[in-house]
Amino acid sequence: MGLSPKAIELLAGKNLGHLATVMPNGSPQVTPVWVDHDDEFVLINTAIGRVKQRNVTRDPRVAVSLTDSADPFTKVQIRGRVVAQVTQGASEHINKLSHKYMGRDYPMRPQETRVILKIKPARISS
Amino acid sequence: MGLSPKAIELLAGKNLGHLATVMPNGSPQVTPVWVDHDDEFVLINTAIGRVKQRNVTRDPRVAVSLTDSADPFTKVQIRGRVVAQVTQGASEHINKLSHKYMGRDYPMRPQETRVILKIKPARISS
Repeated sequence: MGLSPKAIELLAGKNLGHLATVMPNGSPQVTPVWVDHDDEFVLINTAIGRVKQRNVTRDPRVAVSLTDSADPFTKVQIRGRVVAQVTQGASEHINKLSHKYMGRDYPMRPQETRVILKIKPARISS
Repeated sequence: MGLSPKAIELLAGKNLGHLATVMPNGSPQVTPVWVDHDDEFVLINTAIGRVKQRNVTRDPRVAVSLTDSADPFTKVQIRGRVVAQVTQGASEHINKLSHKYMGRDYPMRPQETRVILKIKPARISS
């Protein structure tokens, strides 16, 4: 399935997402993330080696919760799986997100390898 | 362990939480929630029979992600478990939360049984 119009609207806006992944012992983990989309996929940019990246490499099942920063009753929850992890263009992508959320360049860390998590939605509710 | 001063500050503020639970198949689920605390526990009010309530009844391990509505870089992530589900006083509690977040009484649904999830933190990061 693709994204709903409401999911696209919230993902396109300056709204934080909260990404849930599964820890090695099966317990949940959730952290705030910048979000993007490309019509079919939710895009989240992280760095190789972070807990969430290690989790989705082992178990690609994730969930994302989003609310409109201007109206918390406008919300969407997405469950799906990470179908690809893309390093190519990921530094440019975090910079694009930095401009969306902070209006300036991302403070790149040379030791960090950025990666885009491509999430294919399986269930969307709002 | 108890809650950190920063966790208490964010839980006390008018900030949405995002509660992650585990579905029967082991995948994560995450939804926005109103939050409260009583110094030792994170308190979340839901209704009997909702997906999150059924999930924590089967597997009490949860995670909560919170950001300051005025400053998204002020954030806290809590992992822990639901150690009690309390129906006594839960209707009054959702009404208290309704006043905190909306400034008015909660629109009670007579067919709904409210329940307070008491979450004991095991790990807090920010």
